[in-house]
Amino acid sequence: MNRKKALVVFSGGQDSTTCMFYAIAHYDEVELVTFNYGQRHSNEIEVAKSIAEEQGLKHHILDMSLLGQLSPNALTAHDMEITKEADEEMPNTFVPARNMLFLSFATALGYQIGAGTVITGVCETDYSGYPDCRDIFVKSMNVTANLAMDRNFVIETPLMWLDKKETWAMADDYGKLEYVREKTLTCYEGFIGDGCGECPACRLRNEGLNAYLNERD
Amino acid sequence: MNRKKALVVFSGGQDSTTCMFYAIAHYDEVELVTFNYGQRHSNEIEVAKSIAEEQGLKHHILDMSLLGQLSPNALTAHDMEITKEADEEMPNTFVPARNMLFLSFATALGYQIGAGTVITGVCETDYSGYPDCRDIFVKSMNVTANLAMDRNFVIETPLMWLDKKETWAMADDYGKLEYVREKTLTCYEGFIGDGCGECPACRLRNEGLNAYLNERD
Repeated sequence: MNRKKALVVFSGGQDSTTCMFYAIAHYDEVELVTFNYGQRHSNEIEVAKSIAEEQGLKHHILDMSLLGQLSPNALTAHDMEITKEADEEMPNTFVPARNMLFLSFATALGYQIGAGTVITGVCETDYSGYPDCRDIFVKSMNVTANLAMDRNFVIETPLMWLDKKETWAMADDYGKLEYVREKTLTCYEGFIGDGCGECPACRLRNEGLNAYLNERD
Repeated sequence: MNRKKALVVFSGGQDSTTCMFYAIAHYDEVELVTFNYGQRHSNEIEVAKSIAEEQGLKHHILDMSLLGQLSPNALTAHDMEITKEADEEMPNTFVPARNMLFLSFATALGYQIGAGTVITGVCETDYSGYPDCRDIFVKSMNVTANLAMDRNFVIETPLMWLDKKETWAMADDYGKLEYVREKTLTCYEGFIGDGCGECPACRLRNEGLNAYLNERD
């Protein structure tokens, strides 16, 4: 295992792009993996590709279209509307164990490329009811992956306990706030940067940004 | 969760077919899942299909061609020859974490179909160096899947501590020894039933069968 090589689970959104800069700051070698699972916005993959290219990082794009076989849902079934209610217990974008599936593949790929660390931007602070974004799940997944491959991987989650404001602060620490703000895609409607401003993802992102900028400036 | 409904990870080989009969004996409802990952012998899927149909069981066939993206290897790369040495530490058929990937999808599918139990025929007795066939891995995987989906799945492994002779005895207990012997595919060369008789899989299977029949008769 190479303790100085990290594989970042990378969607081209704010969180995983911030994790990418975290990885660049802390590791000698960084590679990215993006899962193509029929995202609502096909430009998600393009955004991820373009960031990877700009950073000169090796980028693995894995076809996860199998997810569609498991579960029709709002993010992959293009004819459904995303519920915008913030107070639902479980958003209708729920794919069972999606993050478990992603981390299973990411750790297997990590094994293949000799990366001792897999970094993922999941966080419990705004986990939206996905049980496989919780810290205790990631820790269990870490043990399971180690046992599966007889390797001591570390799954790192730099954002686990941060809120959006603190995630913006981290990007700023790396001098990348403007880059993350302008280049990443978070919006459910597929607009990069500050996005549509109205979907739950945009609201969360922009409220965090404004809170951080107000505090900083 | 339905404690009386089981999903069996099913390849159409001796072990998983025996597990299918175990499930039929112990559960009210049984469904099967087969992973299509570019097996060396395309008739593996056909054999699995035909057994499922004969038993009248719902059969999910999931495309796992993504495995090929992760790792070229003897079972999926059709131009490689399988090493027949029995004493190698790690067979060259090794796909990292293949069983972890299968069980991740199987538990997610179990969630979708409401099955409280997932049954897999992995066993530690002849695990051939695959760390993700060990009991401790399966137990960790069980916890991880539960945490990932907030459900109390049980992953059952009826063959975990059995040798091949005992697995034949189990099939015989269910009155299915002849069925398993004639209909299942274990052979690396793709022959159903007693197979080529020379590959490591055939030798293991047939030695176990002969040992059991000698003892029984």
